[in-house]
Amino acid sequence: MLTSRLDATFAALADPTRRAILARLASGEASVLELAEPFAMSQPAISKHLKVLERAGLISRGRDAQRRPCRIEAQPLAEATGWLEEYRKFWEGRFQRLDDLLNELKPPTRKETKR
Amino acid sequence: MLTSRLDATFAALADPTRRAILARLASGEASVLELAEPFAMSQPAISKHLKVLERAGLISRGRDAQRRPCRIEAQPLAEATGWLEEYRKFWEGRFQRLDDLLNELKPPTRKETKR
Repeated sequence: MLTSRLDATFAALADPTRRAILARLASGEASVLELAEPFAMSQPAISKHLKVLERAGLISRGRDAQRRPCRIEAQPLAEATGWLEEYRKFWEGRFQRLDDLLNELKPPTRKETKR
Repeated sequence: MLTSRLDATFAALADPTRRAILARLASGEASVLELAEPFAMSQPAISKHLKVLERAGLISRGRDAQRRPCRIEAQPLAEATGWLEEYRKFWEGRFQRLDDLLNELKPPTRKETKR
């Protein structure tokens, strides 16, 4: 169900290391070893984060038993963005109305003032 | 810091009731009582969710001591969307390449086939 997928996706994204892993994987596949390096984190710590990402469907692992390269999966990210998109309309509308209001409240510029 | 704000935002969004509360508030302010009604949830249970949303900056509460109406706040939603937007380019690129590949593999249509 989409609801529980969104739960898992947002929970997985609520951690800076996991977001950084996804950012790294967006530029290509990587093994746990390659992922662990820039984070100054132990391999087991990274593996734990990868399991959360994998359970949420945000990454998949290759079959190569040695490397098991990680690959980013677009679908859950697309779904999470889809959910947030609903609110984009809402907040962009808000900001537009705010802009309009600020423009109305602004004192007239010199050019507009007649003396 | 943006990083910890994103942590809080994504964690707050990882719950279906909290997402439903935001969906309700997108159409206008509401009191805890008004929010509790459609969810068949106790007021304390809703209040707990509201505290998570408020701590994440996703909602604010009015000063009216009786009602303390809840209002959705756009900024954290905009930031979360901003983070996900980075990946939109990535996955749209992927899907485009996939489309191209499928088009290449497709057998030529009749019009294109010369006999």
